[in-house]
This record gives sequence, C-alpha cells and structure tokens, in this order.
Amino acid sequence: MVSRVVFGRGSFNQLGDIIEPKRLNVKAPFIYLVDDVFKGNAELTSRISLAYEDHILFISADTEPTTSQVDDLVEQIILNYKDRPSGIIGIGGGTLLDLAKAVAIMLTNEGVSKDYQGWDLVKSPAIYHVGVPTISGTGAEVSRTTVLTGPERKLGINSDYTPFDQVILDPELTKDVPKDQWFYTGMDCFIHCVESLKGTYLNAFSQSYGEKAFDLCKEIFIEDKGTKEELQDKLMMASWHGGMSIAYSQVGVAHALSYGLGYLLGTKHGIGNCIVFDQLEEFYPEGVALFKEMKKIHNITLPKGICAHLADDEFNTMIDVALGLEPLWENAVGKNWRQTITREKLRTLYEKM
Amino acid sequence: MVSRVVFGRGSFNQLGDIIEPKRLNVKAPFIYLVDDVFKGNAELTSRISLAYEDHILFISADTEPTTSQVDDLVEQIILNYKDRPSGIIGIGGGTLLDLAKAVAIMLTNEGVSKDYQGWDLVKSPAIYHVGVPTISGTGAEVSRTTVLTGPERKLGINSDYTPFDQVILDPELTKDVPKDQWFYTGMDCFIHCVESLKGTYLNAFSQSYGEKAFDLCKEIFIEDKGTKEELQDKLMMASWHGGMSIAYSQVGVAHALSYGLGYLLGTKHGIGNCIVFDQLEEFYPEGVALFKEMKKIHNITLPKGICAHLADDEFNTMIDVALGLEPLWENAVGKNWRQTITREKLRTLYEKM
Repeated sequence: MVSRVVFGRGSFNQLGDIIEPKRLNVKAPFIYLVDDVFKGNAELTSRISLAYEDHILFISADTEPTTSQVDDLVEQIILNYKDRPSGIIGIGGGTLLDLAKAVAIMLTNEGVSKDYQGWDLVKSPAIYHVGVPTISGTGAEVSRTTVLTGPERKLGINSDYTPFDQVILDPELTKDVPKDQWFYTGMDCFIHCVESLKGTYLNAFSQSYGEKAFDLCKEIFIEDKGTKEELQDKLMMASWHGGMSIAYSQVGVAHALSYGLGYLLGTKHGIGNCIVFDQLEEFYPEGVALFKEMKKIHNITLPKGICAHLADDEFNTMIDVALGLEPLWENAVGKNWRQTITREKLRTLYEKM
Repeated sequence: MVSRVVFGRGSFNQLGDIIEPKRLNVKAPFIYLVDDVFKGNAELTSRISLAYEDHILFISADTEPTTSQVDDLVEQIILNYKDRPSGIIGIGGGTLLDLAKAVAIMLTNEGVSKDYQGWDLVKSPAIYHVGVPTISGTGAEVSRTTVLTGPERKLGINSDYTPFDQVILDPELTKDVPKDQWFYTGMDCFIHCVESLKGTYLNAFSQSYGEKAFDLCKEIFIEDKGTKEELQDKLMMASWHGGMSIAYSQVGVAHALSYGLGYLLGTKHGIGNCIVFDQLEEFYPEGVALFKEMKKIHNITLPKGICAHLADDEFNTMIDVALGLEPLWENAVGKNWRQTITREKLRTLYEKM
C-alpha cells in the first residue's frame, strides 16, 4: 500500500517540503516525469522547485506507456547522472503515474522492463517515488501495478514495490481536464468497481472500498451532487477507493478486452474501457445500464466501428492478449471460465465495437 | 499509513511466512505482545511459530495502557536480548495494538515514552511492527497514534512512525469477543465516524472513509444485515475505515471527555466513550439518537453514576485532561471553542455520567 498520502486543495504546494528530506546528496537528483499538457503551464510548473541537478522531463500521454519507453527513460537517467536519483515524481494521469512507478522499479532492478510484466517478479525495492494525479479515475495513484504495453503483451508490473511511497491528492490539479477525458477516466473507476463487486475474488475488504467508490460515482455522474469543487474532490476519492478495491481483488471482462484493443490499436485505456463496457450487458447487466444512463446524462458519444475493418490475424492478436489475462477471467467468470469464454465469443464481442 | 495489509478469514496463518523475511539474525527475536485472554487458547497460540529467541509476552488488557508499562516492557526487552528485536507483533484489541506500536517506537528512541505524547515528537523510525486485531472498532490497527495514560495526561504518541508496517485482518479472530465488549468497541468506531463527519476538520478524504464506516455500522448494529461471519467481516472493515477517517481529521467531544474518565477512573476506552456519548445530544443529535437506538436493539445497559461521588479536585482533574486536548475541541466546535466549552459546562456533563 501507499505509505504516505496528503489530501487537499492546494496540497501540491507541499511537494518540495515533503521530498526534500529524501534527497540523498546533491548529485542524486529528483527527476520529475510530467504530462506534457503542463508544458508552459506556469500555474503548475512554477510550483516545482528544482535544486542542484533536479530535472523535469515532459512526456506525452497521447499513447499508452510501453516497456521500451520505460527502458529508454531509465537509460537516459543512468547516462545523465553520476548518482542514482533521490526520487522519481510522476505528475499526470495513469500514463505518467505508471511510467514513474516503472522507472523507479527499473532503476534498481536488472534487465529490461518486459521481464517484470506479471505478478511479483520484482526483486529489489524501487527508489523513492511520488505520485501526483492530475486526472481522477485510473486508481494508478494507489495500485500495486503499472500497466505497460510490451513486445508480447499489455500487462502490469504487479509487485509490493510498485506502489508509490508518497501520494499527493490535490483535486485542484484536475480542474482543466477536458470533459470527454473526465468522463472516460471517471468511468475507468466506475468499471473497476463493477468488476470488483461482481467478481468471484470479492471479499469484505475490497467490497467496502468498491461500494464506497461506486456510491461516489453515482453521486458524481448521475446525481451531480455538489459544487464543481466538491465533485472534483469526490472523484479523486472515488478513484482512490476504486483502486484499493481492485488492489485486493481483481478487474474483469472490460479490462481484459480493453487491453486487447490497447495492444493492437493503441486505444487509450479510459475510452477503450468505455467502448468495451458498452457491450458487456451479458456480464454486468446493472452496471452497463447505469453506464448507459451516465453516457446519456453527460451527452457522451463513443466512437463506433473501431474493429470494423480488422483482419482475422488482428482479431486473433487481440483475443490472445485478452485471454492471456487469466486472473481477470477467473475473477469475472470463475475457475471454469474456459468453458464459456471461447475465442468465438470474444471475436463476436470485438466485432460489435 | 500502514504499508501492507492482508485480509481474510484464516489469514492469521500467514503471519509466520510474512514476518520471516524480516528476521535480522538469530539473536534478534520477534517479540509477541498478546492479550492474556488468549493464554492457554491453543487455537490461537499454536499458530504462532516461535524460532530462536522469539518470545510471547501475555499482557492483560484490563487496564488502559500506560507510559510506565511501555517503558517497563522496553527495558525488559533490552535487558533480555543482546540484539534489538527483529520486530514486535501486537495481537489483541486497542490496548495490545497500542502497546506494540509504542514499544516499537521506544526501542529506537531515547528517553521515556511520556516525552513523546503529543504530535510528531518521534525522531527515529520504529522497529518493524505488526498488528493483528482480535476485536474490531478501535481503529488502532490503522491509526498513527498510540494512546497512553501518562503521569500527567492521557494522550497519544502521534507520528508518521507509529502506524504498523504490516497488519493482518482476520475477522475469525473476533469470534469469541463477549457481547458487551463487541458493542462498546464497535461503538468506538461509530463514534469516530460521527466525530469525524460532524467536525470542522472534515475533508473529502476523511468523509469518504467516515461515510463508509458509518454505513457499515448501521448495517451491523441496526439492520443486522448478513450472517454472523459477514457481520464480523464488516465490523473489521468499519473499524479500518473509521480509523482512516480520523487519521485524516480528528476525533471530538466524546473522546476528549472519555480521556478524562480514563485518566481519573481508569474507565476502559470503549465503555467510557459510550457513557460519554450517551450525554452528547447537544453536540451530535442524530448520532446520539442512532446510538440510543443501537443500545436498545442490543439490550445494552450502561453503568450509571460513575461520577456521582467524585470530589471537586477529581472533577477538575478530568476537566484538565479533557480541555488539554485542544485539536479535538477545535475539530468539534471550531476555532473559537473556548468561548463555549467552559469548565462549568464540562462539570455539568461529567455529573450526568
């Protein structure tokens, strides 16, 4: 679990004071990985105080993070600095947070990041890493995974060393998120809750977190309960609780199929989940009905026909990626999931998207 | 925050496997502080595997933990072992968990524990410490405090080093808790939620945790929703979320007055909170109404007249302890709490108990 967290509007201002005691020496910099939408945004960047060799790397979140991107960042950091960094600070959405977690791990573990995709393969503790979410919903700020697209699969580095040492939850940082993205990423959280609460891995721990996040999603996306600021605060907490819920259970069908889309087409995780979830009445009838209601309330139109012109081998690639995520299927359908989750069934679902 | 947590019926069996990698060397034992109600209870003790110089200390929870008790335990451990222990494992209710946290801190910090009562006075990280609650409600398993009765006051050691490194939440361990104690300790959680949700320190973080714990308390103590096992699971999670809620806000009037009772009369925290809360309609009207309903449903009769024969100086002692807890009053009543919270008012409240 995340060891330390601060919450509050404006709490981003505490970042410098929080990390300074973690500086190892003047040659061991803090490296900031920041979503490049904030490049030139003084409101955020002026509040990052750089000392000694500290450095900001602006990174685009237009594409999902990849293992080779992680390896390149790690190499760049090793080549540029004599000492191992004092810490990695990720500022952005799920992409930036996952990159920060993966880079922090790969700075202390040998080899390349694709070798660590899976469960509990990381051997050495990561270097100190801090997460500052600027959009709410992914749960990446609290999860023990960092989802990467590798040469063979889209899969997380799941380990006890993955979670951030420190998280700063400042809902004010989410105020400029475009509406569509707000919705898609918020739905990532909603879908986490549905997959967790309807899964066979459910336990009272996950359930209590999942129920709270689910209730908050309803307050935000259906009842529209509160001021703009209160809704931002609530969504940040929904993301947190939704992330905690799946950390102690597992996601399900939507995530498995969405990883297939992401791997083949590069579909971003938030919108990909929405496109998939829209077709999953069979698995999650109440959840999908609520989702369609939310879409309507917020006037969201999802892309259609993204799989319309795919060839057989492309469908097969997506199906391979999706079927490879065994724990997700077992959670969603049970131990005998292979009896009902056939390649044909997944092909039919993908064809509808 | 607690870095690692496992949850589940039977998860206590994992204790040995979880702590073994933390063993520093064969001369650095694990010391178990265990509630003496489990002495001779093979169902629990046979599942603690002792190696090398590991040792179980059975400790009574009949009295609230004191600073001198902590100092004695630390001295005993230092004198008996050549090396500093590999870890301290607390197994029991709030008393045992708080003792374990305090001993772990005092093994690495100079002086005596009374010097650390307050906020953020601890200098060095505690040794590895593990909490295993066997009764639900106190939130001690998740809090950043360890409440001790000292020579001058009843006050916690609140610090970033206080929380457990590892918690094992096994609801099965709570199955033999006597009904009265189940109620009193459960009400500790309920009261945490009311004090947090009605406090001026409230924020969306604390609120989301507090609301979930509050809802769970209603399901357990009013709606009686679920099997015996499900209710145990839920109460363990309510305690956790309630503890998280106050960790990021603060408790209030009930705890302030209850600390006074505890200091003077040694009243145990759970029942003390109930005796106090029963008189707090003025501060928490809805919460107290629900509490009275719960008392009725579960046929609980609280002691009466515990302050009936106290002398003036005794009342004054309790009032001094209660008024000394400034953050609690500020949370409950606001910055100008001194205008309304007079010594006379507290005397009148205590006289009703």
